Amino acid sequence: MKSPVPDYLDEILRACGDDDGAPADYIPQLAAADPERLAVCVSTVDGHLYASGDADAAYSIQSISKPFVYALALLEHGLDHVLERVGVEPSGEAFDELSLESDSRRPLNPMINAGALTAHALVGEPGDDADARFARIHRLMSDCAGRELDVDEGVCASEMETAYRNLAIANLLRSYDVINQEPLDVVSGYTRQCAVSVTTRDLAMMAATLGSGGRQPMTGKQVLPPEVVRQVLSVMMTCGMYNAAGDWMSTVGFPAKSGVSGGILGVLPGQVGIATFSPRLDAHGNSTRGVRLCTRMSADMGMHIMQAPEPARATVRRDRTLRGPDGSLVRVVSLQGSIQFSGAERVLRIVADGDPVAGFVLDLRRVASTNGVARRMLAELVRRLQLDGTQVALLDPGSFLPLPDDAVVTQPRRLDTLDRYAEHDRV
Amino acid sequence: MKSPVPDYLDEILRACGDDDGAPADYIPQLAAADPERLAVCVSTVDGHLYASGDADAAYSIQSISKPFVYALALLEHGLDHVLERVGVEPSGEAFDELSLESDSRRPLNPMINAGALTAHALVGEPGDDADARFARIHRLMSDCAGRELDVDEGVCASEMETAYRNLAIANLLRSYDVINQEPLDVVSGYTRQCAVSVTTRDLAMMAATLGSGGRQPMTGKQVLPPEVVRQVLSVMMTCGMYNAAGDWMSTVGFPAKSGVSGGILGVLPGQVGIATFSPRLDAHGNSTRGVRLCTRMSADMGMHIMQAPEPARATVRRDRTLRGPDGSLVRVVSLQGSIQFSGAERVLRIVADGDPVAGFVLDLRRVASTNGVARRMLAELVRRLQLDGTQVALLDPGSFLPLPDDAVVTQPRRLDTLDRYAEHDRV
Amino acid sequence: MKSPVPDYLDEILRACGDDDGAPADYIPQLAAADPERLAVCVSTVDGHLYASGDADAAYSIQSISKPFVYALALLEHGLDHVLERVGVEPSGEAFDELSLESDSRRPLNPMINAGALTAHALVGEPGDDADARFARIHRLMSDCAGRELDVDEGVCASEMETAYRNLAIANLLRSYDVINQEPLDVVSGYTRQCAVSVTTRDLAMMAATLGSGGRQPMTGKQVLPPEVVRQVLSVMMTCGMYNAAGDWMSTVGFPAKSGVSGGILGVLPGQVGIATFSPRLDAHGNSTRGVRLCTRMSADMGMHIMQAPEPARATVRRDRTLRGPDGSLVRVVSLQGSIQFSGAERVLRIVADGDPVAGFVLDLRRVASTNGVARRMLAELVRRLQLDGTQVALLDPGSFLPLPDDAVVTQPRRLDTLDRYAEHDRV
Amino acid sequence: MKSPVPDYLDEILRACGDDDGAPADYIPQLAAADPERLAVCVSTVDGHLYASGDADAAYSIQSISKPFVYALALLEHGLDHVLERVGVEPSGEAFDELSLESDSRRPLNPMINAGALTAHALVGEPGDDADARFARIHRLMSDCAGRELDVDEGVCASEMETAYRNLAIANLLRSYDVINQEPLDVVSGYTRQCAVSVTTRDLAMMAATLGSGGRQPMTGKQVLPPEVVRQVLSVMMTCGMYNAAGDWMSTVGFPAKSGVSGGILGVLPGQVGIATFSPRLDAHGNSTRGVRLCTRMSADMGMHIMQAPEPARATVRRDRTLRGPDGSLVRVVSLQGSIQFSGAERVLRIVADGDPVAGFVLDLRRVASTNGVARRMLAELVRRLQLDGTQVALLDPGSFLPLPDDAVVTQPRRLDTLDRYAEHDRV
Repeated sequence: MKSPVPDYLDEILRACGDDDGAPADYIPQLAAADPERLAVCVSTVDGHLYASGDADAAYSIQSISKPFVYALALLEHGLDHVLERVGVEPSGEAFDELSLESDSRRPLNPMINAGALTAHALVGEPGDDADARFARIHRLMSDCAGRELDVDEGVCASEMETAYRNLAIANLLRSYDVINQEPLDVVSGYTRQCAVSVTTRDLAMMAATLGSGGRQPMTGKQVLPPEVVRQVLSVMMTCGMYNAAGDWMSTVGFPAKSGVSGGILGVLPGQVGIATFSPRLDAHGNSTRGVRLCTRMSADMGMHIMQAPEPARATVRRDRTLRGPDGSLVRVVSLQGSIQFSGAERVLRIVADGDPVAGFVLDLRRVASTNGVARRMLAELVRRLQLDGTQVALLDPGSFLPLPDDAVVTQPRRLDTLDRYAEHDRV
Repeated sequence: MKSPVPDYLDEILRACGDDDGAPADYIPQLAAADPERLAVCVSTVDGHLYASGDADAAYSIQSISKPFVYALALLEHGLDHVLERVGVEPSGEAFDELSLESDSRRPLNPMINAGALTAHALVGEPGDDADARFARIHRLMSDCAGRELDVDEGVCASEMETAYRNLAIANLLRSYDVINQEPLDVVSGYTRQCAVSVTTRDLAMMAATLGSGGRQPMTGKQVLPPEVVRQVLSVMMTCGMYNAAGDWMSTVGFPAKSGVSGGILGVLPGQVGIATFSPRLDAHGNSTRGVRLCTRMSADMGMHIMQAPEPARATVRRDRTLRGPDGSLVRVVSLQGSIQFSGAERVLRIVADGDPVAGFVLDLRRVASTNGVARRMLAELVRRLQLDGTQVALLDPGSFLPLPDDAVVTQPRRLDTLDRYAEHDRV
Repeated sequence: MKSPVPDYLDEILRACGDDDGAPADYIPQLAAADPERLAVCVSTVDGHLYASGDADAAYSIQSISKPFVYALALLEHGLDHVLERVGVEPSGEAFDELSLESDSRRPLNPMINAGALTAHALVGEPGDDADARFARIHRLMSDCAGRELDVDEGVCASEMETAYRNLAIANLLRSYDVINQEPLDVVSGYTRQCAVSVTTRDLAMMAATLGSGGRQPMTGKQVLPPEVVRQVLSVMMTCGMYNAAGDWMSTVGFPAKSGVSGGILGVLPGQVGIATFSPRLDAHGNSTRGVRLCTRMSADMGMHIMQAPEPARATVRRDRTLRGPDGSLVRVVSLQGSIQFSGAERVLRIVADGDPVAGFVLDLRRVASTNGVARRMLAELVRRLQLDGTQVALLDPGSFLPLPDDAVVTQPRRLDTLDRYAEHDRV
Repeated sequence: MKSPVPDYLDEILRACGDDDGAPADYIPQLAAADPERLAVCVSTVDGHLYASGDADAAYSIQSISKPFVYALALLEHGLDHVLERVGVEPSGEAFDELSLESDSRRPLNPMINAGALTAHALVGEPGDDADARFARIHRLMSDCAGRELDVDEGVCASEMETAYRNLAIANLLRSYDVINQEPLDVVSGYTRQCAVSVTTRDLAMMAATLGSGGRQPMTGKQVLPPEVVRQVLSVMMTCGMYNAAGDWMSTVGFPAKSGVSGGILGVLPGQVGIATFSPRLDAHGNSTRGVRLCTRMSADMGMHIMQAPEPARATVRRDRTLRGPDGSLVRVVSLQGSIQFSGAERVLRIVADGDPVAGFVLDLRRVASTNGVARRMLAELVRRLQLDGTQVALLDPGSFLPLPDDAVVTQPRRLDTLDRYAEHDRV
């Protein structure tokens, strides 16, 4: 059998519509891009990559480098320090506007050029020169891609020849002491960062790295900590698609970042990384067909983060009270599926609403996953039952619950089976 | 046993900090609010409500009415029509700015007053007067709360006496034909909508209605369709907390809306509705302690929508190949937990990578939930295997998979047991 | 002989170009204006009026009322009080923008609607109602025109039906307490002020009243004090022609105000008042042909206030030293023309540079005019010469110089003739 | 006798008030300026200069160079070409804002840095390098000052070290192709232009050059044509005093330009050039005491351009009708003072209103000056009288009127005396 996923990707490439828009033309290298190039890749967070179209065609990463350099600044200096220099508010303006917050003089967010230049300048140690800064950036981006990325020197040189706009921004930032380095150095390093050459496969792997909380799916390396990734995805969600952020949130609904060479990188946290490529751009500077591909995938695959998940089967699979050999009552609550706050709350509620029992068995054998709050709540359930004098046993072969070494309470027993209760009377 | 959830809510109320900020004071009724009032409520999507503090104190809903009236406009006229009149972009400005999109003259979004007045004016039929419009709005808000809500006539009258700012906005909107009604009527109706009296319990129920995709948890009434709720939550996410949207996205990360009387309504799609109440406001006009409560709950309960879920137990619980009575090979793949795109993809991948078999059993007995894309992918798996000549059986007591009445393929059998395979040799 | 001035005006009407632009169309009365109507009037500051074209056609004064109502507010409350409520800076924006100074919330200037509404509201006593305010305004405008002006009630009623924009502005002003009256009253009175009906003849007389420092040329009534007129003309110069102020200053160079019904009122201080009328408007809302007529007149008649006057004949007509009957020297300095600072300075300089003499005669018989600084300087010349012991006589039949009753110095003699010096030897 | 003018200047220096404000401090050279330095100079248009205070102290000219470089661009390329690159509208913003017209991308005016940099870049031939451009600018500024000006190399070097803001602006201009040169070259040349060293005497002479329509008063060289000067003064009037243009127009009322080193240059067209110097600056960046000195001089000396001149003595000194030797009537109209439009109009009017006569004598012996429109009107008077068959004679020893060699009409006679009419009967 052949997997239908590639067929699906082939199908949406075919259906992604007319070839309107035009490639960026401010430098010859971008203007010379084949406007018919088209690719889509989807990478699972365990590293399996599906590709369709020109997935191995290379192009300069351009603005898609911004979230990674922002991540690096966060990694090196922490959120508070970075927030002093770059805000997180949508700008409602073009990506290359020379606008700063009127009082703080911070760039509004790290996805517009002013903020991206500032993030670039934050990378590294105070004494670092442009090469040292770029080396750190190149290291991170390569680690996210899972391979050593090259720089397109032609693009880099050509961009520098007409980098007047970015030089204007960098000089403005320097005049307000938002950056401390020579503006030309910062623009030079930033331009190099944007000229890193990627394929659509690379972008999908970089997206999957963000999607898996910072762990590169293929190499297994934890490239970025989850809290940095969360911040980066938050900013991508509200500011990633230039001044169409609200429209993107409404219609697509997952965090993404586009680049002027035609790429779009999208992330569905915990599930997949997505990348599309088509050089024709719309008025916002986003890839026309890339936007259509993402919109289609979001609708087909239920990727909008504001879409309420379809009702899950009840978390509580079974709730029985048995009479033990000694005549005492034992309540057995069996859970299933993914347990988050609402599932744990349900368990707590039915137990709190029920009558006291001598023994309590929490059966987690069919649980697929839990999150921190659910684990804390279930551990608290165990603790409170024990404080009430109830003897508690866990059926937890997946070791979801920590066994607290709490002096106050008896350690709950781990059981492998409920079989011995089975012969007793149900209540 | 007593549930720890109320203890948790009591605890965060105690810990939510100093009483800085001050109640709104532009009308006597708000200025007279007891600044020490404090409440938090959490409602599950199945309608269980936890409350702590002054959860039954009543106050005017103010701007928290905005998402519900936007929802009503969407429900009545559809997204395209509403988008012609009100945008979805964050404004970066104060909620009462007189700013419209420079070309289209649309208000930037329905969470600023200009957009909220426009959404109000969109409600109802062309011939509707102010009373008819308000009646519709009152109906929806009451349906979301699950009880008949009152209007605080004192607040309503007092607001109208100084409603110069909203009258300015409504006249501006009228001058551009964004609204067609008399500005005074629209402001009057809008002011009445803002004077609807709610408790923090009500707000939590209204939040839970949004959290459950539009179904009121207690009455079970589908008040709003899921696609309208998705749009409303998207706009709340990027525009709900006035001009601190980006900051809220970074630190709290779930869609919310605040009101000048001190309430905040928050939604975790599919899980819970949240409401907090404290009249002291910060410089943005958001409740100081409400923001702290939401930040705390988000951190404690893992509610940030950009937080990657913790790794789930493998979707594929077991993958066996058995030799049937006739000597042919039968592959049995058993799934568990919640199956979404990535889980379904995993199944498809291992099947596609494996050798052909004569029979295939897809065991969904331990599956807790699926979503549309996962169902479509698994159905496609069945279809492709059948096209390859493989005989397929489903163990699907939850009826997750539709049995396609596809002429091309044989109907897969539903099985209740795999026991008869058990005696045969494993491969 | 027939005066060539009417011929000149006929000529420029003929030559003022194509009939591009279109009348304002936001109310039927303006839209119905005959677009081919065309008039120009020039009134001297002594009240002689030249007219060409449809000079007796009546139309609503519209925004040309603004400088007169601003003048009235200044007259009644003084510059400082008015400046607290309305600024004097050009706005660079459309006349009906809802923009106020960001910190003070003042309208930027009294020529945009926000400032004009504020000036209107400033008129009168605190307890005045809309009728009382309008009565004052109507009185001033009629006094400037030299006849009782009517109100076009049809225009007034029609404007009120769609006055949403001005209601928006007035409500905004009220929300910031820039005005204290009910917004509807202020807009109603302002709309009435704009509906005052004038002919181009009227406008020219009103302009001439400003041009003569506030004295109505025909009635001789001092309607406004010169310092108020100076302030009004200053604001007209920088803000009168909507957002084309700089362009108007460059190309026309005299203060002016245009109205949406097609009128333009211009002032050449001390010389003439000008009015043009043609309903077709350009993109700025200024009369297309009116602008051309003013540009032509400015060029032809040397009316640009930044144009250096052509060199005047020497102020010092004659400078002789005669030997008197007693052998002492007497210096006789004869002046001519208009004496301002530079002329007086010249006299002081040659006297200061010259040798001391026993007697000094200052001959002002051919002087046409002086201004204050020149008079003070010449009086100081007399005083200093007397302090030096020189005997001074004035030939001043026009009484330009005051005879100071200064105890320190001898009163200079007034002479009627220098004839008795004539027989003595010239030095 | 000693002239009172120096006493007056000494007096206003003493009275110009407290030493509030502080020198600019963004480079050491400006911060080190002695804050108590104070000077005022007034130069007549015939080159006599009055000075008081530290009139020979040298400082960098800074922004006061802007009008001269704008003048040079106008001189070399014409108004239309320059207007394509730099507008003439007041900006309402700080002098160093990075704001351009939203559609045309032109800097708003040549007095803000963006416009001044553009004007600088316009100077010279396309192939000119920075030195060649500066040489032209230095030539013009020296010609206006009447001596070779130096450059303060220390200031120039220090400004370049921190010229980030201007580099930002120049790069922005380059990115929009408003300028075509390398931004660094333009900023370097502009910085050099601002570092030209002047004394307050120099500034007064430069001002007087503008005041006399472009003719340097001492050297007599016509440095700039009058039409260029008119344009420069127009822009100074509306944009010269940074974002306080409207306030300056109201209170001072003559065109001026200030610089950050503490100088102010003011012009009263046709009369004087003014310069003040005091390094302490107000919040707008204008010299605190300089503003006070200019305000005082404007009030004392009647320099506000919107101040209506005091009523002149009647232009028509005498209007007699005599009976000639042959019994025919001869009308003799004698004029005096300065004849402009309004004076000429008066003559035309009384003649047009009078009865036909056989002979007409126009007596211009006491006329001090005329302007072009007056001359054209009087010549037309002559022409029309002749067409009516009236014999015309001129008493015009100053040759104010051209004798038209018009084939249609008889040449009017020039007379030296009216004596022979004296014996005849007056009518």
